[in-house]
Amino acid sequence: MPQGIKTLAVVGVGLIGGSFALSLKKAGLVERVVGVGRSLENLERALELGVVDAITRDAAEAAAEADVVFLATPVGQMERVLRAMAPVLAAGTLVTDAGSTKSDVVALFRACLPTHLRWCVPAHPIAGAEMSGAAAARYGLFENRDVILTPLPESDADSSERVAALWKACGAHLHCLTPAGHDAVFASVSHLPHLLAFAYVDMIAGMPDARTRFDFAATGFRDFTRIAGSSPEMWRDIALANRDALLGELSAYRSALDAMVLEIERGEGGALAERFTRAREARHNWYQSFLKKG
Amino acid sequence: MPQGIKTLAVVGVGLIGGSFALSLKKAGLVERVVGVGRSLENLERALELGVVDAITRDAAEAAAEADVVFLATPVGQMERVLRAMAPVLAAGTLVTDAGSTKSDVVALFRACLPTHLRWCVPAHPIAGAEMSGAAAARYGLFENRDVILTPLPESDADSSERVAALWKACGAHLHCLTPAGHDAVFASVSHLPHLLAFAYVDMIAGMPDARTRFDFAATGFRDFTRIAGSSPEMWRDIALANRDALLGELSAYRSALDAMVLEIERGEGGALAERFTRAREARHNWYQSFLKKG
Repeated sequence: MPQGIKTLAVVGVGLIGGSFALSLKKAGLVERVVGVGRSLENLERALELGVVDAITRDAAEAAAEADVVFLATPVGQMERVLRAMAPVLAAGTLVTDAGSTKSDVVALFRACLPTHLRWCVPAHPIAGAEMSGAAAARYGLFENRDVILTPLPESDADSSERVAALWKACGAHLHCLTPAGHDAVFASVSHLPHLLAFAYVDMIAGMPDARTRFDFAATGFRDFTRIAGSSPEMWRDIALANRDALLGELSAYRSALDAMVLEIERGEGGALAERFTRAREARHNWYQSFLKKG
Repeated sequence: MPQGIKTLAVVGVGLIGGSFALSLKKAGLVERVVGVGRSLENLERALELGVVDAITRDAAEAAAEADVVFLATPVGQMERVLRAMAPVLAAGTLVTDAGSTKSDVVALFRACLPTHLRWCVPAHPIAGAEMSGAAAARYGLFENRDVILTPLPESDADSSERVAALWKACGAHLHCLTPAGHDAVFASVSHLPHLLAFAYVDMIAGMPDARTRFDFAATGFRDFTRIAGSSPEMWRDIALANRDALLGELSAYRSALDAMVLEIERGEGGALAERFTRAREARHNWYQSFLKKG
């Protein structure tokens, strides 16, 4: 049975922050949730819906009385919040987050909370990233979802265990990676494909005969480009926040393309068929295990 | 009312060839269909299912008595078939095909049937490309699907109209492009994304920590890589058959990637957000018209 929380401060009461609060309430693990945010309208909605029990626009006020602080804002807003909280955080107050990049969050923790690191445990729940406000929050969002913890060398084992226990109570599957390992993995299986799809659609759209081309695009195009419909602001932030890992992946991908171009130029049908066969098998194996996850 | 066919020779009685035969039979436009193929088992199945009325493994025998020849084999097998037919084709016998690349088919027609070009009309129906044998053939496969004709300068207007009328009787929407125009369009909206997806999955699969990476791949990855599950042999053939157009698209794509990489390196958030916004809008507009097509 995980240690209960007297006061949980949720900064950013959207889909992720709100669902975390609801799931912990349902599990009976939190007495009181204080919602923090910039929009009073959203906070009042959260209060009305019972997602939170109290609201404030002052992060420091919420942090001062919290025993756990959960940062569920876009990473771009975290520095402001952390700087406001730093002077008032009590020793032992757990600080964790839900940012989709981790090296940058770790750097922020180090910069803003240098004396509090033993109670800081960065995390990334893999669940719908669209920030749709408190009304989107729901129980069960994290059921069977992966959550990745990226503890610092300074993080107390006890702090990591407490954060892990909260996520387990939400039904999530826990994993542990280094911040750099996390960013490399997500650069390759999430951030890179988004950027490849954006660049691809933008390239076609910029061609003089774009209309004729789009006219004949079919189901393969539809699926390949679905992620190019994602939020430009969110993906700009991720591209910049995870710049180093992403540039590494982009460089590796350009090398892979160069190798394939050479095979096409030289008419190396055997090498092409081998490349496509390896890809098809890897994709098939991945898909089978993905389906098993449920 | 399109001109009826006494004998239709279908070379390659798979999904495309068989469905074309069935659709024309249902429309009452063909008296007799002769199926030609390499596998006697598949031909006998086609006969049993009523997809064809007679079968032979000898393309010349079928061509000699046909008033329309429909080539629905992989492009790689067409030269052999065309060379076999050339000596026996009667003046006026229409020759058309369903190959997914067109400049190479045009070159084959020119090389193998130089005196027959006024009756040659290359075509490409945009419908499921998996060659699943005669058992996969069905009425209605081409209902509301696009079919692209790429007539030669030498093709008689009457020949093009007759081929167009057959496809219209199958319920298809007809379009006309030059062979080079066709190949450029499909290089960009179909062939390029397939190759990008193959190269991407193969790259991840080849990494030392591929397993960890695949472990965290989710729905974006699933859709982006679906086409990397396609037939390696078919895509090897397409990559080589449409080499010139594809190399042009790959080169344009590498330039687009280079520009995006520069924006990330320089931290140009505004330029990235604009690129992603253009892509999202283009994708949204495309998807709306794609949905309207039904």
